Amino acid sequence: MQLLKDKILQVGRVEGEGVLKVDSFLNHQLDIVLLNEIGKAFKEAFKDAEVTKILTAEVSGIAIAVIAAQYFNVPVVFAKKTQSKNLDSETYEGEVYSYTKAQSYKIRVSKRYISSEDKILVLDDFLANGQAALGLKQIVDAAKADLVGVGVVIEKAFQEGGSLLRDKAIRVEALATIEAMDSNGIIFK
Amino acid sequence: MQLLKDKILQVGRVEGEGVLKVDSFLNHQLDIVLLNEIGKAFKEAFKDAEVTKILTAEVSGIAIAVIAAQYFNVPVVFAKKTQSKNLDSETYEGEVYSYTKAQSYKIRVSKRYISSEDKILVLDDFLANGQAALGLKQIVDAAKADLVGVGVVIEKAFQEGGSLLRDKAIRVEALATIEAMDSNGIIFK
Repeated sequence: MQLLKDKILQVGRVEGEGVLKVDSFLNHQLDIVLLNEIGKAFKEAFKDAEVTKILTAEVSGIAIAVIAAQYFNVPVVFAKKTQSKNLDSETYEGEVYSYTKAQSYKIRVSKRYISSEDKILVLDDFLANGQAALGLKQIVDAAKADLVGVGVVIEKAFQEGGSLLRDKAIRVEALATIEAMDSNGIIFK
Repeated sequence: MQLLKDKILQVGRVEGEGVLKVDSFLNHQLDIVLLNEIGKAFKEAFKDAEVTKILTAEVSGIAIAVIAAQYFNVPVVFAKKTQSKNLDSETYEGEVYSYTKAQSYKIRVSKRYISSEDKILVLDDFLANGQAALGLKQIVDAAKADLVGVGVVIEKAFQEGGSLLRDKAIRVEALATIEAMDSNGIIFK
């Protein structure tokens, strides 16, 4: 998606090892015009897929999922990281390993909101080590629903997440795939 | 907003003291059609206000803010609850007291994304004790921006948040205002 790549080159900042900051448009400030183009691009990428629900994980997947959902005409469910009074006690759980924190945490979806009839599209901002997507897949599997694919705005192809998912025969579509990056620049695939 | 009140009466669940669960459409599963009507209603409520940016706090304000932003044609910024590698070190901070946890936590916005030129509309799902909105106001004040108003989907008028904000001459618009509720039912104002 050229518009997205241009934006990443224009305002993305490579900070430290493997960190691409796109907080000016994707995960802190949100550029709604670009998000709409991203939503349309996901619909185009998965136009042949029958999707009944979009699943994401809080926090940074939510904005992308809700804008995209308008083009799929389906509801969104976002998995929660914390057990709160607003979450039912009956949940499907996934486990996400965080390399940054060197520990796992749970993500949960109320059993009310995914059924075995659902055809689930997982959307997220980044695909890096793939742990969030695998945690969401556990939730889809626990609900005996179908995972029709995983759509990500930015895939870091120099990390293992893409291979991990594709090796499990999961369909993965990335709107921008970064082959390599450092302080000198970003190379797209 | 009649559609919203109907939905609350139809699927909202009063659980325990003061807890209204609307997780089937507002803060876990997201009904995108209804969210669009909510977005339009916020635009109608603030049609005379000049808004340059919508501010909300993670997690449950994000979906509402991004859908509404399409009608205001402005970007969204969401305040973050955790210090992460994706957040700049230079931030405006607000403090939010959580009655549930009986402790305060900080919410932060990068100084890049709010300026003294901004006219900020704060949007959120609930207005109950008003602490989240006051924390967001601290961020707006720290940036020397203008707070043009606070829009909430549901105000619990039996809690003090609405008065707290209005006593500070903050314009508050709620799309549904609940006067009282218990296991027998919900009474709108």
